[in-house]
Amino acid sequence: MSQDQSEMKTLRLLFPQWQGGYDESEFPGQIYPLGARLLAWLAPKSEAPFVEIPVEAWTGAEAPKEGGVFYRQEILRQMRAARNIIDAHAPDRVLTFGGDCLISQAPFAYLNERYDGKLGIIWIDAHPDVTTPKDFDHAHAMVLGNLLGDGEPLMAGEVKKPCKPEQVALVGVDGVFPHEREAMDRFGLRVIPSKDIMNGGDAAAAWIREKGFARVAIHLDLDVLDPTIFRSLLFANPHVGEHIESEHGKTRMHDIGRVLKDIAAQVDVVGMSFAEYMPWDALSLKKMLSELSFMK
Amino acid sequence: MSQDQSEMKTLRLLFPQWQGGYDESEFPGQIYPLGARLLAWLAPKSEAPFVEIPVEAWTGAEAPKEGGVFYRQEILRQMRAARNIIDAHAPDRVLTFGGDCLISQAPFAYLNERYDGKLGIIWIDAHPDVTTPKDFDHAHAMVLGNLLGDGEPLMAGEVKKPCKPEQVALVGVDGVFPHEREAMDRFGLRVIPSKDIMNGGDAAAAWIREKGFARVAIHLDLDVLDPTIFRSLLFANPHVGEHIESEHGKTRMHDIGRVLKDIAAQVDVVGMSFAEYMPWDALSLKKMLSELSFMK
Repeated sequence: MSQDQSEMKTLRLLFPQWQGGYDESEFPGQIYPLGARLLAWLAPKSEAPFVEIPVEAWTGAEAPKEGGVFYRQEILRQMRAARNIIDAHAPDRVLTFGGDCLISQAPFAYLNERYDGKLGIIWIDAHPDVTTPKDFDHAHAMVLGNLLGDGEPLMAGEVKKPCKPEQVALVGVDGVFPHEREAMDRFGLRVIPSKDIMNGGDAAAAWIREKGFARVAIHLDLDVLDPTIFRSLLFANPHVGEHIESEHGKTRMHDIGRVLKDIAAQVDVVGMSFAEYMPWDALSLKKMLSELSFMK
Repeated sequence: MSQDQSEMKTLRLLFPQWQGGYDESEFPGQIYPLGARLLAWLAPKSEAPFVEIPVEAWTGAEAPKEGGVFYRQEILRQMRAARNIIDAHAPDRVLTFGGDCLISQAPFAYLNERYDGKLGIIWIDAHPDVTTPKDFDHAHAMVLGNLLGDGEPLMAGEVKKPCKPEQVALVGVDGVFPHEREAMDRFGLRVIPSKDIMNGGDAAAAWIREKGFARVAIHLDLDVLDPTIFRSLLFANPHVGEHIESEHGKTRMHDIGRVLKDIAAQVDVVGMSFAEYMPWDALSLKKMLSELSFMK
């Protein structure tokens, strides 16, 4: 790393956003907020300020669809709230506990301004997050597109300084839909498949060296993990039997941990987001415990 | 319920015991303490005093086997510490977050004295916990035997007023080893199989009505749950491929929640223990996060 870590001003954000992952079931509104809080609980203790982004709770009411995506106005409100909170703290580094993938937009947009575009973005995810409302209605699949000035127009409009495609490497993306392929090709995004970061593969850190970035922001969508091993994922929801027609992750936690450590050993990690953690068993237990009259 | 709940003095115990479930791998010493703390975190907030029982941390050192079981001396020390803490608080009700199944011994032994043997014991578990060191070396499988005056002799010696077999119903026990069957038959323990509490089955509450108990202590070993649905169990450890030759649970969380609520609606639940919660994904995340230099 190039900067004294102890001099960096870090902000921790708790971002229990679920609206971007809303799928017309009761699960997103329950599992994303619990996942965000549990991630923050599992993280090492820190003296850094810890701020919660206010998020409207799920009520079971019919979801508004605006401009082709669910909850657009509420998501825009959350993005602005997050940005206002980040600006107020003016940190050198932002650690974000989500929530759906959209939780990275405000921190990464801030960091790209803060470091004047001299920022590498490692997007670890089984999916490229470059869809648009033309093809999909869940806004969490548009967040990287928004950061690149594409995606959902109003959300992209919140990014004052769009990132350039050459700042971005997609890590763990193995298979995509045709409309995602089109966007990836149009941007010319670098793609590092799962096999190149598994079994000691160094491709993510090598890309950073090749590009010469001194500062990096990392987005980690936990769905890059193999859902038969790490079960707290959308693709391992024990309450639904249906197969979701979308790419499943192939990596293991030790692969991801090693990639993150290798990057941190060579550059400053100025942004880190954890997204899409869905602790199904913890939710099941919590709901059961909440209904017991004697737990007083 | 027969008593005004608000008059009852409740004690909450955090009991991160793992020695009773030690299996010569690195997992018990890591997963049981995290499971205990996570259970307490998931539980509804309460004004009740919350006390942690001190438990020696796992160090990786070779485990002592004494009298045929692992860590006997440390387990005895923990039982006495738990009992001293309970006695100091002299509660009407004890809620215990474990930990391996042995965490119920000190609270249930206390409650049996406190209520002079007028106590029903609902033992919800895929296993009867009536083994002895003759057949097994993991002491958590002996805890109900200890409470009945059998089990492991020194541990059973900590129970001043042994419970009578007619106080106990085993709930969710479907298949057992021959040595377990022998002990169950010798005691004449009432067994309620999984099918009699699933799909609305009322057998546990009916047994309490039949026996006329006004106060009940409930032990819940989460391994009574189907490990293909609730994955945070020994039988769903993603890090081992081996099949464990022991009965797996068949029930769902909604079955167990309903049984507990039905019991609480008709009698005072004066003891409730939660045991054998193994949040594998949370442990995996926690370990990964702890190794990242930038999580400061």
